[in-house]
Amino acid sequence: MNEFHPPRRILLGPGPSDADNRVLSALSAPLVGHLDPEFLKVMDDIQSLLRYVFETQNKLTIPISGTGSAGMEAAFVNLVEPGDSVVVCVNGVFGERMSDIVGRCGGTLTRVEAEWGASFDLDQIRNALKKTHAPILAVVHAETSTGVLTSLSKIRQVLDEFPETLFLLDCVTSLGGHPVEIDRYQVDFAYSGTQKCLSCPPGLAPITLSEKAVSVLRRRKSKVRSWYLDLTMVEKYWGEERTYHHTAPISMNYALREALRIVQEEGLENRWARHHLNHRALVAGVEAMGLAMLCKPEDRLWSLNTIRIPEKVSDAKVRTKLLQDFGIEIGGGLGPLKNKIWRVGLMGSSSNRNNVLLFLNALEQVLSEQGMSLERGAAVEAAMNVYCT
Amino acid sequence: MNEFHPPRRILLGPGPSDADNRVLSALSAPLVGHLDPEFLKVMDDIQSLLRYVFETQNKLTIPISGTGSAGMEAAFVNLVEPGDSVVVCVNGVFGERMSDIVGRCGGTLTRVEAEWGASFDLDQIRNALKKTHAPILAVVHAETSTGVLTSLSKIRQVLDEFPETLFLLDCVTSLGGHPVEIDRYQVDFAYSGTQKCLSCPPGLAPITLSEKAVSVLRRRKSKVRSWYLDLTMVEKYWGEERTYHHTAPISMNYALREALRIVQEEGLENRWARHHLNHRALVAGVEAMGLAMLCKPEDRLWSLNTIRIPEKVSDAKVRTKLLQDFGIEIGGGLGPLKNKIWRVGLMGSSSNRNNVLLFLNALEQVLSEQGMSLERGAAVEAAMNVYCT
Repeated sequence: MNEFHPPRRILLGPGPSDADNRVLSALSAPLVGHLDPEFLKVMDDIQSLLRYVFETQNKLTIPISGTGSAGMEAAFVNLVEPGDSVVVCVNGVFGERMSDIVGRCGGTLTRVEAEWGASFDLDQIRNALKKTHAPILAVVHAETSTGVLTSLSKIRQVLDEFPETLFLLDCVTSLGGHPVEIDRYQVDFAYSGTQKCLSCPPGLAPITLSEKAVSVLRRRKSKVRSWYLDLTMVEKYWGEERTYHHTAPISMNYALREALRIVQEEGLENRWARHHLNHRALVAGVEAMGLAMLCKPEDRLWSLNTIRIPEKVSDAKVRTKLLQDFGIEIGGGLGPLKNKIWRVGLMGSSSNRNNVLLFLNALEQVLSEQGMSLERGAAVEAAMNVYCT
Repeated sequence: MNEFHPPRRILLGPGPSDADNRVLSALSAPLVGHLDPEFLKVMDDIQSLLRYVFETQNKLTIPISGTGSAGMEAAFVNLVEPGDSVVVCVNGVFGERMSDIVGRCGGTLTRVEAEWGASFDLDQIRNALKKTHAPILAVVHAETSTGVLTSLSKIRQVLDEFPETLFLLDCVTSLGGHPVEIDRYQVDFAYSGTQKCLSCPPGLAPITLSEKAVSVLRRRKSKVRSWYLDLTMVEKYWGEERTYHHTAPISMNYALREALRIVQEEGLENRWARHHLNHRALVAGVEAMGLAMLCKPEDRLWSLNTIRIPEKVSDAKVRTKLLQDFGIEIGGGLGPLKNKIWRVGLMGSSSNRNNVLLFLNALEQVLSEQGMSLERGAAVEAAMNVYCT
C-alpha cells in the first residue's frame, strides 16, 4: 500500500470546502499535550475567536471534539431531559435529523413542517409553541439539503412572545458566510461545523451557549445521556479548572485557530459580502444557462446553491463528468430531492470568482455533451455582469 | 493574534505521543470530499490496516469520528439497552468512566473492583457473571491511569464459562504497543484511540465488532441513544452502501492511514518487542535511581509506566522542570493517585532509546535539584545494560 496523494479537487459540494494552505500547514505542526501550557493558550485563543465569529459574549463558546453532527447531538443531549417538549422546524435533512435526535434523548417531539426547498409559515411555529409550551424551539438556519435560509429576525419575533423558550440553532452552513449574530437574536444554543464557511477540515463543531442555556444545563435532574458530550464536564476542561475530560484533538484545534484567524483578518462583513456576491454571480450564470434555482430568491442561502436538474439530464453523469474532467465536486440531492437538484457550495475559501466562472464553464460543457442546447458563453457573461456592477 | 508555533516537546505522558513526520505531513494534504471515489479507497485501506493491527477478520472495523472516549461511548451506547446488566471491572479512571457511561445508557451496573495499581481477582469476575447473567463484561486492557495491564488470556478463560456474555475491551493504550489479538481472545467490541501506540494525532477512535456483537446490534429493541455514534447507520457509510451519515474527518483519516502504514512496515511483533525493550530499560533506570514502580512486574504495561513519587518531592515542581528545562512532558496521577505517581508513556514513536536515556538524565537532574541524593549516571548505566544484553 503506497503513500496517499489526494487528487487536486475544487470543492463546491455541501462541504468540506477547500481549506487555505495556512490551515493545512497549521495541521502539520508538531503535537503538544492537551494540558501543555502552550496548548491552553491555543484553547483560549480559539474561544475568543469563536466569540468573534458567533458575534457573542457567551462565556461557554468552544469547539466540540466531533463533526457538525456531534454539535447537533451536543445541543439536544445537554438541553433535553426525558419528557421535555421540543418543537423542531423541519424542511430538510437536518430538521429531520434534529427530530430523530429529540426522540433518542427521550424528548417529546412536535414538528412544524414546510416543503423541502421552502421556508416556514411563522404562524405554524407560533401555534406549535402556544399548544405545547415547549421549552425548546429548534431551527436550522441554513438547510444544507435544500439551500433554504431561515430568517433569524422572523424566528426571533415569534420567540419574543414565548420568553421562556430556548432558541436552539443549527448554523453549520451559515457561520462565517452569513450573519448569524447570536447575541442580537438571543440564540441560546448554536452549533456549527468547521468544514463549511470557516474552511477548516471537518472534525470539530463550534458551539455557544447563552447564560439561560447554561442555567438549564445546571438545573438538570438527570445526567446528560452522553458522557462524551456532557458539557457540565467538558466546560471544566475549557474553563479555568482545566480538568482533564477527554484528550482534545490537538492538530484539529491548531487548524481551527488558524482558520478563525483568517476569518478575523478578512472581517466578518467583508466575508459575508464576498459570499453574497459570488452567490449572486452564480445564480445569474445558472439562470442565463436556462436553468432554474430550487428556492425563491428571498429564501436562498449564499453558501449553498440548489439548482433544479433539467429534464432528461442524468444527475450522476453530470456530477461524474464534473469531477473527472474538471476536478470539481458538487453535491446531489437528498431524500425527496434526489436526482432533482444539484447542490453547489460556495463556502469559505471555495467562494471566489475563479471557482464561479470555472464551474459555469464546466457545467455548460458537460450539459452540452448531454445534448442540451445552450448559448455558449452566456452564463459567464451574466456572472461577469454581476461582478462588474 | 499571531500564527501559532508550538514548542518542540518530547511527549512521554499518557498521550498524545509524538507523531511521525510522515503522519503530520499526511494531515496537511489537500482535502477531498467525504464521498470522493479516492476517499472511499482511503476508507477501505484504513479498514484493512485496522484489521491487521487489531488482528481480526471482523468486517465492521472502522474509526469513529471522535477521540478514544467516543470509542468507549460507542461501545456501550450500541450494545446496551435500558435495563441490560453490565459487569464492569474497575481499577482506575477508565473503568470508572465505563461505569458512568453504563448508567447513562440505562444499563444496570455491577462493578468488580481492584485496588488502583493492582490487577483483578478472577473469581470476583466469575462470581459477578454467575450472579448477574450479564450479557456484557467490560474490561480495560491497559489502564492508563495506573499502568496496569489486564491479562486477556485470563479474562478469556473466565468468559469461556459464560458463552453468551459479550467481551467488551478498552485497548486505547495497548493497541499497537502490546498484543491485543481480538480474534484469538474472541473480543466482541474493542475500541482504541489514535494518539497512543499508533502515534497518530488524537481525534479518531478505531473500533472493531465481532459477528456476535453485530447481531446484538441488529436485534436491538430501542434506537441507539446516540445518533452520532449509531453504528447501524455509521456502518452503511463505511460499508458497500456508502450512505452519507456525517462528514468524515478527512484529514484525520489521511493521518490514520499513514500511521497504520508505519505500523505495518515495522510489523506488529517488532513493534511490541520495541515497546517491551524500552519499558524494561526505563524500569531498570528508574529502579537504579532508587525509585519504585507502582505495579507488580507481571502487571506492568509497556506503554505507560507508573513511578511512585518519592517522599518530600513535589510532583508539580518536577513535572514543570521537566517540561521547562528539557521539553519533556510526563503525566501526573489521577484520583487517589494524585501527587503519588508519575505516568511515563513510551508509546508508538515516543518509545525509543534516546527518549528513555534523555528522560532518565533529566529526571536525575531534576530530583537532584529537589535535594535527593542520587548516584549520578547509575540510571543510564542500568538502562544501557538492558539495551546491550
